[in-house]
Amino acid sequence: MSPSSLESLVEALRCLPGVGPKSAQRMAYYLLQRDREGAAQLAASLVTALSALRHCQRCNTLTEADVCERCASPRRDASLLCVVETPVDMNMMEQTLAYSGLYYVLMGRLSPLDGIGPRELALERVVARASGGEVREVILATNFTNEGEATAHYLSEHLSARGVRVTRIARGVPVGGELEYVDSGTLAQAFRERRSLA
Amino acid sequence: MSPSSLESLVEALRCLPGVGPKSAQRMAYYLLQRDREGAAQLAASLVTALSALRHCQRCNTLTEADVCERCASPRRDASLLCVVETPVDMNMMEQTLAYSGLYYVLMGRLSPLDGIGPRELALERVVARASGGEVREVILATNFTNEGEATAHYLSEHLSARGVRVTRIARGVPVGGELEYVDSGTLAQAFRERRSLA
Ligand SMILES: [Zn+2]
Ligand SMILES: [Zn+2]
Repeated sequence: MSPSSLESLVEALRCLPGVGPKSAQRMAYYLLQRDREGAAQLAASLVTALSALRHCQRCNTLTEADVCERCASPRRDASLLCVVETPVDMNMMEQTLAYSGLYYVLMGRLSPLDGIGPRELALERVVARASGGEVREVILATNFTNEGEATAHYLSEHLSARGVRVTRIARGVPVGGELEYVDSGTLAQAFRERRSLA
Repeated sequence: MSPSSLESLVEALRCLPGVGPKSAQRMAYYLLQRDREGAAQLAASLVTALSALRHCQRCNTLTEADVCERCASPRRDASLLCVVETPVDMNMMEQTLAYSGLYYVLMGRLSPLDGIGPRELALERVVARASGGEVREVILATNFTNEGEATAHYLSEHLSARGVRVTRIARGVPVGGELEYVDSGTLAQAFRERRSLA
């Protein structure tokens, strides 16, 4: 008995991670009843972001240009390449002020159960980038979860096979923890204590 | 260092109830990275819902017509008017199959701390509707929370002052509980055991 445009909205809200049928319904009524302006703004932001954002050709993060500001900056040390899982992790790293090299953002992690393997993450791009000659050291800063560790292990093997120097940020990050929830001091320490893998 | 269209999207997602800065960020990356189709669908559904949905002139629920299907149906008993807080609650009532009258949807509850009083809920519309002559009994089915009880109390006083017969669904609903999370059997029982207030 619900109007179809309401049902469609509830269904569409379920594309958001962590939003089930009950909360989608609550969100729909909330938006329509209490924040129509916010809802219109959200629709507009989605459209703009979808059309404006693409992946940086160098580091793979989301950007509005072909190459993001960070990759285009002449002040970054191009001989260091830090590999992170997400743009959020990259921002966390930047906030430590302990690093001035470049990044590669995987936009995920190896997760065989979810069908995400080396091909889905295009890990060959990381290897190609790292063995192009300019990079002196690859710092693996994936999470210390099982999946993050597996991703680091995979990259370490393939990079060292190509003669690339590979380090891993120190396990100052709590085991099983995620970078996003660690304070800057701990992360800075982890950077300083990075250890050689290959 | 985030692209502005990404920042705008993160900010816009925070209009959703229960979504803080961290989850807004996660949602934004998830949509852009893993479900661009879902994001586009969400934007379109928001635009459609905002333009298509309005309040039913009779029962105040969200509808695509001037008067909703339920209010327009000749098979409903127009001498019974059930007052609920939200369209979700109305759907819960319908699922009991214990009621064939009409509804009035308050789209909220009295909540002085949030600045929601009788005027904001336009409670005079309920009173006017109930005392128009056609309604024989008003069944108050607001939640058994403090706010829902206060709303029922307010309506009961104003309706009985006009000589309208007012009942309250039975407290088979757990005290402090919300209709949305109660099973149909309990709700049907609460309907059957409704008691006279005036
Ligand atoms: Zn870049
Ligand atoms: Zn109606």
